[in-house]
Amino acid sequence: MRGWLDDVRSYVPPVQIGEVMRAFCICRVLASRSPKAAAGDVVTAMNGIREIGILSDKHVEKPAFLPPGGKTTDLLGVLGMTGLTAYFGMMKIGNVKKGDTVVVSAAAGATGSVAVQIARIQGAKRVIGTAGSDEKCRWLVEEGGVDIALNYRDPEFRRKFKEATPEFVDVYFDNVGGEQLDMALARASRGARFVMCGGISQYNAEHKQGPKNIANVITMRIRMEGFIVFDYADEYPTALGQLAQWLAEGKLKRKETILKGGIRVADEGMVNLYKGGNIGKLLVEVKNPDDERQSKL
Amino acid sequence: MRGWLDDVRSYVPPVQIGEVMRAFCICRVLASRSPKAAAGDVVTAMNGIREIGILSDKHVEKPAFLPPGGKTTDLLGVLGMTGLTAYFGMMKIGNVKKGDTVVVSAAAGATGSVAVQIARIQGAKRVIGTAGSDEKCRWLVEEGGVDIALNYRDPEFRRKFKEATPEFVDVYFDNVGGEQLDMALARASRGARFVMCGGISQYNAEHKQGPKNIANVITMRIRMEGFIVFDYADEYPTALGQLAQWLAEGKLKRKETILKGGIRVADEGMVNLYKGGNIGKLLVEVKNPDDERQSKL
Repeated sequence: MRGWLDDVRSYVPPVQIGEVMRAFCICRVLASRSPKAAAGDVVTAMNGIREIGILSDKHVEKPAFLPPGGKTTDLLGVLGMTGLTAYFGMMKIGNVKKGDTVVVSAAAGATGSVAVQIARIQGAKRVIGTAGSDEKCRWLVEEGGVDIALNYRDPEFRRKFKEATPEFVDVYFDNVGGEQLDMALARASRGARFVMCGGISQYNAEHKQGPKNIANVITMRIRMEGFIVFDYADEYPTALGQLAQWLAEGKLKRKETILKGGIRVADEGMVNLYKGGNIGKLLVEVKNPDDERQSKL
Repeated sequence: MRGWLDDVRSYVPPVQIGEVMRAFCICRVLASRSPKAAAGDVVTAMNGIREIGILSDKHVEKPAFLPPGGKTTDLLGVLGMTGLTAYFGMMKIGNVKKGDTVVVSAAAGATGSVAVQIARIQGAKRVIGTAGSDEKCRWLVEEGGVDIALNYRDPEFRRKFKEATPEFVDVYFDNVGGEQLDMALARASRGARFVMCGGISQYNAEHKQGPKNIANVITMRIRMEGFIVFDYADEYPTALGQLAQWLAEGKLKRKETILKGGIRVADEGMVNLYKGGNIGKLLVEVKNPDDERQSKL
């Protein structure tokens, strides 16, 4: 969402000043002329940050199912864009294999927290997650399936990163860019796969910092590849089936923070994300469905 | 060769102070106990910069053939490491296809000059080469098979780079890193392939400059992949056969500069390369074979 605000060439047009902020939402249908959804249905939709919208049914998805133990908000998290991003990134770009050493940055975030667990499920030998607080690191070790969690704010982070990767890094799932990307380049194994998913450390930077160790891409024959989850739309059903199964089997844990307060606090939601307070998926409750009599949520 | 002098983890151990400088050479065999070569044979070998060496036959290759019009020094250039590097980079990593827009940096160099011509032969729609002098740019257009040659020392280089890529860049074959890599990232097409072959602009830099536009790897789904020609050793015969055929057919042009003066000027050879004077392959004549009666060169 942060990237959509930059006025640059990208995978979707930038959101213009005055336009509704683009956002994936869980919505309740109030009225419908489409066979795809009826009044009262709960759907996910690219509705944007607004209380009520009129949408083409192209932009509406009726959730096919929720697995045992699944809840509606999972449709924006582990069973939504961030879960799917973790899935395709780790499986298709990272090509994670049994025995791999895997590092995921922002591992306590919505995408990272699913990515580390997929690496674990796929048989990685060692899964390392980085995060910005000791609380997140604790969660990563206790719940998140990592072997080692490293706090990047620790003054000894650089040394610990090196010590945590004695057999180097086979898969680096990058959500942050900047210094951590450079460290991963320095510790890459021959033929490492770098899943280029995000670069949150640089999104607000006035002077962007490119990876100084880019030459290691050559010497270590690294494949560094970017992707956008939309490219895999055809494979969503398969991926969601797998994610739902892992969720039902208890192999996949997730955590969420819901920011209450309605549309007025939506901008705070994004600002807060950069302060790094939340673990897992951060959601904004634009409108409380319990306020409406027709609510099925 | 420059990279081998850095005391870092790489694809081969660094050359230590006091050791013979590692180098591929064309050598005449003075004496042999191996069935692989006999006295008088001309071979290519990892002999290093020295006049006489004693080598295991593991490090010796007897040239299988020279195509019509080929000459012995081609075994270090278009039919040697640099030609093979261009071949595997453009074919295997760049996956160049009919209709592609291709940019090659340091396109007048030993590797780049072969890379642009392979892109042309493979049916690229538009081939753009960058180089550091107008003379090189002229050679690239007249002999080197490029549609557009750009001098990166031109103050208008940035604007011209943009204008030369109206349909963006499908394959970027990078030999230089630094600012040109950033420009290519800014102009990458969706799904572009970045062949990470060299980064000469940064080899001697005190403060290495990482690509500030690295985020485009994500938004444009770029695959940025490094390689070392040795990884493709099994496929050398096929590649050499193809290169030799193109050479014999006149589809592949090459140029070389031979620095005379013996072992005393070998270090100058490397320093001069960084001044950008030569077009094509730069060779150092460590020992003149005509000084020897047994010469078959």
